[in-house]
This record gives sequence, C-alpha cells and structure tokens, in this order.
Amino acid sequence: MAQDKLSKDLGEQGLLKLIQAYCATDIVGDDGAILNLKPSYQLVVTTDVLVDQVHFSDRTTSAVDVGWRAATANLSDLAAMGADPIGITVGLSLPGTTPTSWVEDLYRGLSRCLQQFDTPIVGGDLTRSEVITVAITALGQVQSKQIIARSQAQPGDAILITGYHGNSRAGLELLLNPELKTNLSDRERDVLIKAHQRPQARLDVVNKLRSIDPEARVAGMDSSDGLGDAIVQICNLSKVSADIHLDKISRSPSLQKLTTHYPVSEWIFNGGEDFELVLTLEPQLAHKLLTTLTPDAAIIGQIRATKPEVPQIRIFDQQQIIKLEESKLFQGFQHFLG
Amino acid sequence: MAQDKLSKDLGEQGLLKLIQAYCATDIVGDDGAILNLKPSYQLVVTTDVLVDQVHFSDRTTSAVDVGWRAATANLSDLAAMGADPIGITVGLSLPGTTPTSWVEDLYRGLSRCLQQFDTPIVGGDLTRSEVITVAITALGQVQSKQIIARSQAQPGDAILITGYHGNSRAGLELLLNPELKTNLSDRERDVLIKAHQRPQARLDVVNKLRSIDPEARVAGMDSSDGLGDAIVQICNLSKVSADIHLDKISRSPSLQKLTTHYPVSEWIFNGGEDFELVLTLEPQLAHKLLTTLTPDAAIIGQIRATKPEVPQIRIFDQQQIIKLEESKLFQGFQHFLG
Repeated sequence: MAQDKLSKDLGEQGLLKLIQAYCATDIVGDDGAILNLKPSYQLVVTTDVLVDQVHFSDRTTSAVDVGWRAATANLSDLAAMGADPIGITVGLSLPGTTPTSWVEDLYRGLSRCLQQFDTPIVGGDLTRSEVITVAITALGQVQSKQIIARSQAQPGDAILITGYHGNSRAGLELLLNPELKTNLSDRERDVLIKAHQRPQARLDVVNKLRSIDPEARVAGMDSSDGLGDAIVQICNLSKVSADIHLDKISRSPSLQKLTTHYPVSEWIFNGGEDFELVLTLEPQLAHKLLTTLTPDAAIIGQIRATKPEVPQIRIFDQQQIIKLEESKLFQGFQHFLG
Repeated sequence: MAQDKLSKDLGEQGLLKLIQAYCATDIVGDDGAILNLKPSYQLVVTTDVLVDQVHFSDRTTSAVDVGWRAATANLSDLAAMGADPIGITVGLSLPGTTPTSWVEDLYRGLSRCLQQFDTPIVGGDLTRSEVITVAITALGQVQSKQIIARSQAQPGDAILITGYHGNSRAGLELLLNPELKTNLSDRERDVLIKAHQRPQARLDVVNKLRSIDPEARVAGMDSSDGLGDAIVQICNLSKVSADIHLDKISRSPSLQKLTTHYPVSEWIFNGGEDFELVLTLEPQLAHKLLTTLTPDAAIIGQIRATKPEVPQIRIFDQQQIIKLEESKLFQGFQHFLG
C-alpha cells in the first residue's frame, strides 16, 4: 500500500509528483510561478515557518490538521491586512523516514483549507532535513485604501472582535491531557478541539467590511498570538490607549463550563491561535459590521487618546477597573497596563 | 562581546531586532509586507529551502556565504524567468545554541548580495528548531511578453550559455579537500573557490537582452542544477532536441589546469551551482547578445526538431558525435541521449 511507504522509498521525483497533484497545474515546470494582480492592487506577502515538536506534534495534530492550521495562519495574516489571497508557496523539509502518507495528508489539509477561498498552492520546494519544517509564504492583494494596519487606530474607535477567544487553547489542553475529567459533554468537548485543530481565517469579515464601506479606515490584526497581544500591538503602533470591558468578551458555552477549574480568563487573553480579527473602527461602522456577524462577535471596548505618552490599557469588569494579574495577561507588556 | 552570544541568550525579541536592521524599514510592524508591482507586470514567485548539513556546512561555507548563496539562488530563479526582483522573505529556524554572530552574518551575506540589485528583505519569520533551515521566497515582476520559459525553445534556436561551468564544483572540491595537491596558483585556486562561495545571479543578462530586443521570444533556465540538466529540461518541456558542441563550451583557465586529474567534463555538465543562464533564442539575437557579454559566454549548440518523438541530445566533439558516459552526464535522463 502506498500509505505505508517512506519518503525515501518514493524518492524526490516520486514525492514531487505526489505533491504536484495538490498544486496549481499551470505552474509546474519552471523555476517560479507567475501570478496576476488586479490592476491598482498592491501585493501583500507574509511568511510563517512551522517546526515539528515546536509548533505541532503527533500527540495533538494530525498531518491534515498541520496543513489546515498552517494554511489558516497564513490566510489569517492576509485577512488581518484586509487582503484577498492569491496563492501560497510551501517549502517543505523532512526526514526520509517520514511516511509518504504524512506528506500527502499535509497537502490534503493545506488544500482543503485553501479551497474554501479558491486559493492555489503555486509553488514550493522539497528537501531533506532531520526535522519536519513547513515554511509557507502567502501572497495576497489589496487596494491601498482598504489596507488594515495596526498603526491606524484612532481615539473614539470601537474595538471589535470577530468571535470567541480561548477555545483553541482549551482544545489544546484537552488534547494534551485526554484523561482530564471535565463537566463537558462530548459535543462541547468537540467544539473546543475543533477550534484548535481546524481554525478558520476570517476572510469573510474582510469582505463584509468592504460591502458596508469600501473605503473605511480600519485598524487591526489577527489574534493568533493572543487577544491581549493584539490589543497591545495596536495601541503601541497607533500610539493610543484602550479600555476593555471584560464582561463584553464573548465566551463559548463550552469554555464557560471550564471556568471553575481552569484559568479561562488567561486563555482568552493569552491563549492565542483563535485566528479571529481584532478591529478598531468608527462605532457606527462597528455596530453595522456586528449585525452581519454571528453572536460570538462583540464590541469589547474603545480606543482612547494616549495621555501620558505611554499607551495604557484599562480593563473593566462591570464598570469597575480591575487589576488582573498583569504578568499573565500581557506577558512582557506589563508597563502598558493601567 | 556581542559576537560570542548565543541566540537563546538574546531571546526572540533581541534576535528579531538584530535581524530587522537588515530588513526594509517600512515593513516592520504588520503581519505582512506591502509591495507595488509596475502596471501591467505579472508577479513571479520562487521558493528555496536550505538546510544545514544538506545544502551548506561550516566546513565549506561561512554564514556570510550561506546568505550570499541563498540570495543568488533565488535571484537566479527570477533571472531564469526574465523577471526583475522586488523583494525576498526569509523564514529562519535555528537552534538556541546558534551564535548570534552566525545569524547576523547570514543576514549580512543576504543583504550584501541583494543590495547589488536594490532588492530588500521584506519580511520573514524566526523560530526555534534543532536544525538551521533557511526558507527563502523571492518575488519578482515581469511583463508577459518578456517571460523566459523552459517550454518555448524552437528548432533553429542557438543555445547560449552566459559564462563558465564547472568552476563552482571545482571550488567545492578544493574546499572539501584543502590538502589536495594541484598545479594551481593561489590566484587560480581563489577563482574557483570564489565561484563556489560567491556566485552571481545573471540579472544583468536579462537587462541586456531587453535592451537589444524587448519582445524577443527566449527560452531558458539557470544552470543551478547543472548545465546538462538545464539542456535536458528545456528540450523536454519544449519537445525539441539539441546538438551540443563540447569544444564550444568555455572552460576557465583554472578549471582547464585540473583536467588531467579530475573529471572536469562531468563537473561542467553536472556540477551545478554555477548559476549561469542557458538560453535558446534566434541565432541573430544570440550573436548580438554575445557581443555584450564577457568571453566566458558562448554559443554551444542548436535546437533541432524532435524526430522521433523523444527529445535527443547529441554531443559533438570537433564535429564527431561522441558517446560520453551517459549515466554520468545526464543522471536519470539517459534515454534522452542520442
């Protein structure tokens, strides 16, 4: 059976042939891929490297999921800039002992995720290494007026999140400790695990935003490194402060059930890999956008002018300013906390 | 001294700061870089992954040279398509024990090579791994009429090489076996070693070609995988045959001196990494182009119609068809040989 073969048995040419089945057919044969941008669009480029045992592990992530998550992470970076994807390249290095089925599953996961957005794999490289490494470069296009940047938040903006946070981190916990006893039903458990294994890039939000107002100024980024990190980065680069209302941050029913025994608030702020967008925009536009999104999206705070010079982030719970554990909430950014 | 520090001592933020000194300043801060293509140009994308102990080794290649060679390999892929470079991304994974001086030297080598062509590093990723891996994606732009493709060679075309072949492989041999006794002077030795450590992408040839005839049909690729491989690939994808005249292939004086003791012909055909261009184009244009190049460039043969169906490559020495050692000349492509 082909599934039991090792990469080294198939050889480089055999492995390339297997991979090419998942790539755009018109790009095979030359040194590079040729792609078209729409007139007056700019090119957006983003790169992510995933390493076995650092970013994924057989314990928690199948090869299909590694591919899916890698595609999502890169598409999410494009969404965070307001860009449409046009293609990705995949630089894969792996030991000869990697089963060919693993390689095929990786590409299956990548292309399943990409197909949702009609995005092809346009090229790549394949080489030997002692460690599986997946280096992805995603290419997108955006009109200059529609670029979402971290640096363009303004006082008065509403802060909008496009979905639940903390689910991915909770899912990882359940995968790492399958013997853990929780009060979750199988279905609630699956919701969290799926959030970790099959996250979605929010390119849909970018499209909705444009159909409401094609030229609106929007600041933002994705929450791949955590909701807290996203807020801090936006404030830092826009030189503004923020008020965040803890009670406004939507929690999934599954996550809510874990509150007693797990540091759920920390997971929400610092868990990361939820791949939602954290946007700041004029309140009226934020409310309009919210009506087009599912109920897990929410307006969670406001941007304020920075005074004194250092950006401050105040966190409110039921209108009371609370001091959360700073070091846990915004690791490395304690000085920003009010 | 900063040079003695290990990556792990500097931390990810410290290392990023060090790297950012070599990157385009306007791209730092957001998830992706934004680049402009000239109107009516198409995007060209190419990816290469280099792995420690597979593609480079401390024995033969300093970190500066690893960077230089990586940049050249990617720029050469763009030149092979007829494209102008617009930027590269660098996905770097490395062990915490890698000296920070190695990382800085890598970026120094990359940017020294790129600066020759005003090409910035526009983004990347940095992550931990047990094995140093450098994944580069190069971005270029080309007008559709100026694309050089492997598939567009036509019978009657002249086959032109832009420089010496075999020098890089000879240089590697000298680096691997420094104790080897040769009849080379120090200067002749250095020529070969430099060919290996500091190869040049032939973007200059692309510019010359355009100034002679902006819309000429040109087929070709680079000789990074060997001169023989390039000829075979072009013939295969263009469905044509080729006659190659061995005596027309320029040999550097240094390489010529090694002929008695080393398989110099094999190095010329299969050594690889010379990063010259192998072009097929109308004879008149080929001769015009040749007058603009240094004497190491040469017209080495002609493209013929393929008859029978399988492309044939005939190799002539002084008008005699010779049978070279097929398995060594065109590894894996023996059936193409006449």
